[in-house]
Amino acid sequence: MRTADGTNLHALQDYLGLHLSRDGLEPLNRQLYRHLRGAILSGLLARGSALPASRSLCDAMNLGRNTVLHAYGQLEAEGYVVSRAGAGTYVSDALPDPPPVGTEESQAAPSPLPLSKRAQSLLKGIQQRGSPETPTFAPGMPDTSTFPWALWLRLQQRHQRSAQGTDLGYLSNGGHPALKAALATYLRLSRGVNCEAEQILITSSMQQAFHLVALATADAGDTVWMEEPGYPGARFAWQAAGLRIEPVATDAEGLRWHGSEPDPRLIYVTPSHQYPLGCVMSLARRHALLQEAAERDAWLVEDDYDSEFRHDGRPLAAMQGLDRQGRVIYLGTLSKVLFPALRMGYLVAPPDLVEPLRILQARLMREGSYIEQATLADFIEDGHFGAHLRRMRGIYAKRQSKLREALAAHLGDWLADSESPRPDQIALLGGAAGMHLTLRLPAGLDDRLFSQQLGDMGMLAPALSGYCLRPPPFPGLVLGYGGADDATLMLAAVRLARFLAEVLRRHNIDGRQ
Amino acid sequence: MRTADGTNLHALQDYLGLHLSRDGLEPLNRQLYRHLRGAILSGLLARGSALPASRSLCDAMNLGRNTVLHAYGQLEAEGYVVSRAGAGTYVSDALPDPPPVGTEESQAAPSPLPLSKRAQSLLKGIQQRGSPETPTFAPGMPDTSTFPWALWLRLQQRHQRSAQGTDLGYLSNGGHPALKAALATYLRLSRGVNCEAEQILITSSMQQAFHLVALATADAGDTVWMEEPGYPGARFAWQAAGLRIEPVATDAEGLRWHGSEPDPRLIYVTPSHQYPLGCVMSLARRHALLQEAAERDAWLVEDDYDSEFRHDGRPLAAMQGLDRQGRVIYLGTLSKVLFPALRMGYLVAPPDLVEPLRILQARLMREGSYIEQATLADFIEDGHFGAHLRRMRGIYAKRQSKLREALAAHLGDWLADSESPRPDQIALLGGAAGMHLTLRLPAGLDDRLFSQQLGDMGMLAPALSGYCLRPPPFPGLVLGYGGADDATLMLAAVRLARFLAEVLRRHNIDGRQ
Repeated sequence: MRTADGTNLHALQDYLGLHLSRDGLEPLNRQLYRHLRGAILSGLLARGSALPASRSLCDAMNLGRNTVLHAYGQLEAEGYVVSRAGAGTYVSDALPDPPPVGTEESQAAPSPLPLSKRAQSLLKGIQQRGSPETPTFAPGMPDTSTFPWALWLRLQQRHQRSAQGTDLGYLSNGGHPALKAALATYLRLSRGVNCEAEQILITSSMQQAFHLVALATADAGDTVWMEEPGYPGARFAWQAAGLRIEPVATDAEGLRWHGSEPDPRLIYVTPSHQYPLGCVMSLARRHALLQEAAERDAWLVEDDYDSEFRHDGRPLAAMQGLDRQGRVIYLGTLSKVLFPALRMGYLVAPPDLVEPLRILQARLMREGSYIEQATLADFIEDGHFGAHLRRMRGIYAKRQSKLREALAAHLGDWLADSESPRPDQIALLGGAAGMHLTLRLPAGLDDRLFSQQLGDMGMLAPALSGYCLRPPPFPGLVLGYGGADDATLMLAAVRLARFLAEVLRRHNIDGRQ
Repeated sequence: MRTADGTNLHALQDYLGLHLSRDGLEPLNRQLYRHLRGAILSGLLARGSALPASRSLCDAMNLGRNTVLHAYGQLEAEGYVVSRAGAGTYVSDALPDPPPVGTEESQAAPSPLPLSKRAQSLLKGIQQRGSPETPTFAPGMPDTSTFPWALWLRLQQRHQRSAQGTDLGYLSNGGHPALKAALATYLRLSRGVNCEAEQILITSSMQQAFHLVALATADAGDTVWMEEPGYPGARFAWQAAGLRIEPVATDAEGLRWHGSEPDPRLIYVTPSHQYPLGCVMSLARRHALLQEAAERDAWLVEDDYDSEFRHDGRPLAAMQGLDRQGRVIYLGTLSKVLFPALRMGYLVAPPDLVEPLRILQARLMREGSYIEQATLADFIEDGHFGAHLRRMRGIYAKRQSKLREALAAHLGDWLADSESPRPDQIALLGGAAGMHLTLRLPAGLDDRLFSQQLGDMGMLAPALSGYCLRPPPFPGLVLGYGGADDATLMLAAVRLARFLAEVLRRHNIDGRQ
């Protein structure tokens, strides 16, 4: 193509004939501009060479005059071509040299840049879990089929219709005041949280709350104590914020530190229902931990992720309610009680921390929609929240006991009666609250391999190892029973139990020691 | 109160009389439990001392028997009291010592913990801006009063009604496929972006995109080049991610580096309409910058925040479309074109980067609602997006020229005709696109003080100094004209111009050198 107008025309005719599409999706002048630019950048049209006269190109390509003039004009405006009065249009000399080979369409292979080290490390942790399509047993997945969606939409439409300009703008109150007030009352009454509405911040997720808390209270390199095993979502957030994670073991009473651990800036716990093992932190341990936090100048992050679904008596009051030092940051989610796509959670901060958190959220993350927040405030105040919660508590409790029955029926002697099985037995841990059980496996079984095999069968039951930074206390599987309906869950439970029995037999574990 | 049952009763009667409320908001058993717990924790009820017999307390306080039994039972379940058969109920001896002074209600003053160093530094930068209630001139604020809200709700309701369980669950596709497809077509045609739908990721905001990009591509301590002056929102995000910011000056052609700057891992630019000065990066500079990024192994972040509102001819194509190395990450927002509370933006990533970004977003941040994303896909495909965009382009262009006229009418000789004023003049910069102008002030004026004075008058016009890490090239104010209606804006413009004239006179600047 490196010749003057006339001979240049033919090559260009071929090139454009290949690339211009007349399907009407993209205007022809735009296509022409794009492909001429491509030809210039790739060197097909050499620096300084002439473009065909617009009239010649029109005839050759059967294009309208304006189409060509428009494309040429755009190329000129952007500096790709220069037009010399009376002498035609030329490819600019001032452009950088084209890449050695290839055209726009067959690009030179780019030299890929590596991901950051932190992203590589995060992705390694995340990908350990795998994620088959069917979410049977996926922990943390609530049943969304039972949500009173029509009622919700009716409440929402009221707020949608009356929405004004400011409701659609940038928001920075830390959440809709009506929702904060409704949540404060709920948390005081149901969870023993000691708070005013002003201490509440509505977040778009638990993850956002982790990120916000990490930024506001800890610097990169600071230490966070995490329960071991513990919640991977929290671990990812602390890692992403550059914190050093100190895994601290748990026993039947909750977090069990030794005193020799490095001073923490944050202590992250799930006292109502340890995730994933399911024990409830004792009152004595709660007081001791508050004392430890005070002595070590640490903030306590209390993640109360699923305590609404208490199946076993009245819930213990939140640690936050015992706090005398203003050290506890209480986190809750609405994804489990309502539905995950709502994208709403909340935190209760000590008074001094509220304003910094609110500003950081508004400027670094932005707030969510107040229309949905006002809807939720109504949903709570009109009693629908409480009703839905009670209904789901019943559904999940029943589903858990069905899961236990199905596993027991197929696992017989292998299944221990208590949470302290013999070495040749398995046990079901937790279940006093929430939507998951943890299946403890006999020592020596590889839970990652087992989880992967279940994954191949379409079941997402993560290995307990994935919840640990050190070797796990025992191999196990975390079994969510929230997300699948009863029939699907029972079917999966039978498949899981049969497969487990086969594995145990293969390992000569007979459960009747 | 430190006596046995009987005498203990009277003090407790006073205490509870003060605290129990019969307004029906909180059940009495719950209140009783809470206040007894408070009395125990604060030492009002001593370790080992007896609680009144439940029957005595009922009579004394006029409470139902069940109310008292319930509260006592809860205190016992939580370990605060122990019940000895036939001997009554006693405060547990195993509790930690109470704090030296105060009761639950008049808490001991907590010893506050400091915020993290990064939060302190971020908040210092953020608070420089101030934020009066009235948002006249607030940059980046679109006019939400003109949004076709009723139409939007109609489209949305279709998707809301048909929403299913999975739409309400956790989402991890990087955005609704229909929206990604619609945006890819739009970006190819209108912005010259070279992309497939699969390269698009829907984010909840530009801020989320910054955070995601910083995490995935750079480690703490890595360098990011930023335009100086530049967008504070981006600066906060890079800071929060631990990046070292290298401010790089801009001239009329855009970013102007010298070559002696430290190697960047990220280069952040606003080539379509430099924020806040408003110049358009030249084609030659774009090519040179792409070349520089390739040689230095850096990613280029192209923030195309408001190029939809081009007032001055046809927009230049995006830098992303010139990229041959897969180094450009293209960011866009929908907050300006539609409305901020929509909480939606997008990024176009080089193919290799898409999957890591998608996974990090899904696990660290969660995705937004697909119902709104599907609504937006319809809004685009049915042509409403283009129509709204054209309409707003007209409104903003007219508003800008009215603002220019109002300022010119009241500033006379002080206002230069061009963007290169004499030292005793002021000038209006930018305005080829977008929703803001930058007012350049004569050297020597303190723009922060000026901005603060305007803030006291109810106008949010940030000082140019706040956009700089080094001393600003000249003092200035950033004037958004998107958020206020014409009448409000004109009124504010007159007040601003009169006040400015007064300040200039006071500084003996007469504009007729």
